[in-house]
Amino acid sequence: MKYQAPLRDMRFVLHELFDVSGHCQQLGNGLDRETIDGVLEEAARFTAEVVAPLNRNSDEQGCHLQDGEVTTPDGFRQAYQLFVEQGWASMTGPVDFGGQGFPQMVSASFHEMLMSASLAFRVYSGLTEGTVVALDRHGSAELKQRYLAQLVSGEWAGTMCLTEPQAGTDLALLRTRAQPQADGSYRLSGSKIFISGGEQDLTDNIIHLVLARLPDAPPGVKGISLFLVPKRLVNADGSLGERNAVSCGALEHKMGIKGASTCVMNFDAASGWLVGQANHGLACMFTMMNDARFQVGLQGLGIAEAAFQGGLAYARERLQSRAISGPVAPDKPADPIIVHPDVRRMLLTQKTLSEGCRMLAAYAARQLDLEHSASTAPQRDAATRRAALLIPLVKAFFTDCGQEVASLGVQLYGGHGYIREWGMEQLMRDSRITQLYEGTNGIQALDLIRRKLLGDDGAELDALIDELATQVAQATSHAALAERVGQRLQEWRLLADSVLQACHRDPQEIGAVSVDFLAYSAYVLLAALWLQAAERASQALAAGSGEPAFYRAKLQSADFYLRRVLPRANAHREALLAGADCLMAMPEADFAF
Amino acid sequence: MKYQAPLRDMRFVLHELFDVSGHCQQLGNGLDRETIDGVLEEAARFTAEVVAPLNRNSDEQGCHLQDGEVTTPDGFRQAYQLFVEQGWASMTGPVDFGGQGFPQMVSASFHEMLMSASLAFRVYSGLTEGTVVALDRHGSAELKQRYLAQLVSGEWAGTMCLTEPQAGTDLALLRTRAQPQADGSYRLSGSKIFISGGEQDLTDNIIHLVLARLPDAPPGVKGISLFLVPKRLVNADGSLGERNAVSCGALEHKMGIKGASTCVMNFDAASGWLVGQANHGLACMFTMMNDARFQVGLQGLGIAEAAFQGGLAYARERLQSRAISGPVAPDKPADPIIVHPDVRRMLLTQKTLSEGCRMLAAYAARQLDLEHSASTAPQRDAATRRAALLIPLVKAFFTDCGQEVASLGVQLYGGHGYIREWGMEQLMRDSRITQLYEGTNGIQALDLIRRKLLGDDGAELDALIDELATQVAQATSHAALAERVGQRLQEWRLLADSVLQACHRDPQEIGAVSVDFLAYSAYVLLAALWLQAAERASQALAAGSGEPAFYRAKLQSADFYLRRVLPRANAHREALLAGADCLMAMPEADFAF
Repeated sequence: MKYQAPLRDMRFVLHELFDVSGHCQQLGNGLDRETIDGVLEEAARFTAEVVAPLNRNSDEQGCHLQDGEVTTPDGFRQAYQLFVEQGWASMTGPVDFGGQGFPQMVSASFHEMLMSASLAFRVYSGLTEGTVVALDRHGSAELKQRYLAQLVSGEWAGTMCLTEPQAGTDLALLRTRAQPQADGSYRLSGSKIFISGGEQDLTDNIIHLVLARLPDAPPGVKGISLFLVPKRLVNADGSLGERNAVSCGALEHKMGIKGASTCVMNFDAASGWLVGQANHGLACMFTMMNDARFQVGLQGLGIAEAAFQGGLAYARERLQSRAISGPVAPDKPADPIIVHPDVRRMLLTQKTLSEGCRMLAAYAARQLDLEHSASTAPQRDAATRRAALLIPLVKAFFTDCGQEVASLGVQLYGGHGYIREWGMEQLMRDSRITQLYEGTNGIQALDLIRRKLLGDDGAELDALIDELATQVAQATSHAALAERVGQRLQEWRLLADSVLQACHRDPQEIGAVSVDFLAYSAYVLLAALWLQAAERASQALAAGSGEPAFYRAKLQSADFYLRRVLPRANAHREALLAGADCLMAMPEADFAF
Repeated sequence: MKYQAPLRDMRFVLHELFDVSGHCQQLGNGLDRETIDGVLEEAARFTAEVVAPLNRNSDEQGCHLQDGEVTTPDGFRQAYQLFVEQGWASMTGPVDFGGQGFPQMVSASFHEMLMSASLAFRVYSGLTEGTVVALDRHGSAELKQRYLAQLVSGEWAGTMCLTEPQAGTDLALLRTRAQPQADGSYRLSGSKIFISGGEQDLTDNIIHLVLARLPDAPPGVKGISLFLVPKRLVNADGSLGERNAVSCGALEHKMGIKGASTCVMNFDAASGWLVGQANHGLACMFTMMNDARFQVGLQGLGIAEAAFQGGLAYARERLQSRAISGPVAPDKPADPIIVHPDVRRMLLTQKTLSEGCRMLAAYAARQLDLEHSASTAPQRDAATRRAALLIPLVKAFFTDCGQEVASLGVQLYGGHGYIREWGMEQLMRDSRITQLYEGTNGIQALDLIRRKLLGDDGAELDALIDELATQVAQATSHAALAERVGQRLQEWRLLADSVLQACHRDPQEIGAVSVDFLAYSAYVLLAALWLQAAERASQALAAGSGEPAFYRAKLQSADFYLRRVLPRANAHREALLAGADCLMAMPEADFAF
């Protein structure tokens, strides 16, 4: 399948819906509309011409481990070199270390394109960017001096080494040990699994960030520290020294993203350096969690867009049966299947989920930017709270959408969807990991309820609903739609109150309501954004826009979303109100006989 | 993962819910409860010990084509031989040709087990059974004499050759030609794709049933005839003659069921014989469609059961975090994850969908049996109508459930779910085909609305709802549950009326409502069956059953289903009432920009 970045929709979201130029002005980064559009056009070219063509083969070929060295699929090395040379790697990196300091509201569009073009290829650079964030915020001046510039440029890559066989969601159980040395360094010993990019042939060095325990550490999550462990030691002059005692023991055999190496990493008294304070490793990791989870959300969005493009192309080409209203293409043996209502239902579900998530991605990215770079502390605090509320929702909902939209892509192709050559089933396989890593979607939902909703007794959610309600009140072009969305916002507020009360009454309710409450919230939030999109579209049409078809499609999409997708919120609402009893009543032994 | 047939639940459904012994008595086949239970126990042993152990490797190894010959995965040949020798192949075959004539209500349990143990292995024999049905009903005495006994025994296998590259859903477009010969045979020329078991190394001969056009055939579906085309010609004495001009041109590279060969089949003036009347090929195929679609439904059920078993085993073993109410396993480093409400939500969804579909499978199988073997014509007619209504629902809903339950299996394993060795992701990949073949699930939904609901103006659905409502009235042990289900049945009836009216008003509504109406109907139907299960469980408990835990679990499952799964019906109802306009409004060119 052929991928082309949805530039028109990206411009709609960035400029017309969220005024990205004003945002950049507020941040003082000097990016104007023309520059942003130019970057996105270049990004579209790079992803379509350099990255997307690698994706199908990367799935067939996968990664290979021999004598401790990992070979990535054909073309990945060359594409990665271009990625570095053309400055795509350093887009978001800190300016002090050679980065271009792009705000996430802009870079998110490029990252979405990368996800669409090849999730597997994007894994390597995504983790490097995460390493940069963690090191930039928590590393000592000396560590930053020695490692950061090469990570920012993409010359070296980074990884996150958290999971161990017995410790996944529950990091309290992790066992990797760090032994202090006389010179202030540490020796790390242990085994980590599921390490994306743990070994690869794209970069000369790999900088691992590793969670481990000091000898005197308290048990549980309060005894975990973060260490930097390079694959090759780095001399004081920046030159590469000898290999460190860290090695790839095996590659996992995965359902998808086969072009991304997923490694078992063994640390055999490997040299490492403490990042941040001892025993505060989890806190250091958490500060970059929002960025990492946002990136995984973008993976869901990118997959959804790619599957929509694939499904749409096929629905326009594939000739099967006649339209029920009479032949649309009488000169052909049958009509293109896009004439059939059920095919349109699938396509419009793909389209409105993809475009809906794109709006929410931009909204969330704005909060992430303000969290770190707004000029006043109150602005930063407000954005921090808003981002904290939105991120679990973005991560879980976008990736659930990615999986659903990819599966619709398969369904649109009929039997051909099951055949590898068409690329649809690969999107399903590739996207399935996004619901699992960086905290499963169930964990995201628990985070939303426990830390975010209960954490401030619903205050930030109330503030979000207030903001959305204000915009609904201003959406004067579509009274009927606005009324419907306004009612949903009110329902959301009441539901959150019920959830809070239930969770206070019985803590089992936290896990009983979590997944359905997250889904409910996401569908309603997207409805509010679709209303805003409809409002902008109406304004553009009223102003005599030269692109009436584009704006009419926005109105039609909003209508479809509110009528045919939003009703799902009802099911989630009723399910979560059912109470924890029906989950907890059955004794463990009675689940099967 | 380890599979064990859910014998206790199967006995509950067959004996306690649907009185299979009485059913067998009515059919006059002499099967009593003891015999049936004995067969199911043997079937459980065969599937657990012979078939299930092959499944993981069959995915890794797949099928291979060399010099026109296909090699199936290691162990398939031996297992297939046992399958034939032990009489499993001939279970449902006609007695006149050496079959055992088991009713589907019994054989469905065995077939579910096969699907759970290895979908790929089951594909070969499933298609052979379909070939038997078609040939038995439509073949000439001579064709039956020459081919049927060996197909019934499983010595030979059968295939269905329908799809061509340009003709999938729309068989009117098919091009394969059949040229009459002086001796009454035909020469078939053309290419078929997606032919399951088109070539394999399990049997000495393969009997293809092929749809093709005669030279003077009218265009469209009324010009399609059915032909029998053997891989090796069969001499008058039953011995095998020379190879026919039919060959496997390629194997498809698929997402899953890799142990099942999926072939491009080329017919180069291959010798064939007409089955049934000329130009009535589609009708001949349709008479076996119910059986074939029922079997695919069982595939969804089998996958769901396997994924539930896998998920449950892991949820009991995997230790992560503590129960929110305090440690449940204080002697261990963490509690098994089954203590967490959200994990239980996933497991109970798996369990209640699997067990719910099992009830509906038995109910539908009874109709299929009565359709063919009830003693009076009115009974047969009634069962024919009921089966016709239920089958599209069984096929589409069960396979959607299979995919969902398999995906929940992956989610329960966290990151490990994405790794091939655990088997969960294979279930997802294997099951994804079931939503596509034998008519996509969208086509099933169109069939439900167009042929079944509009076909008799809703009469048969009304009759089904009447029957279910009668049972609700008799469910006296659970007034609250019964009231809830009774309201749903009333809602279903009204919704069907609205749908009928809407479709009469605007034929576009057929495809606009179809998928959501099917899903709505299935959720409500399962609710009615869960109420019946709860009623039987209450009776057993009141009678002082020696298995109180089993019956209490049924009550708890029914409660969970009605509270947490059934609400999905709301979303489907509201979506389908939205009207066709929001699907048809957008011009094709405006889907993307």
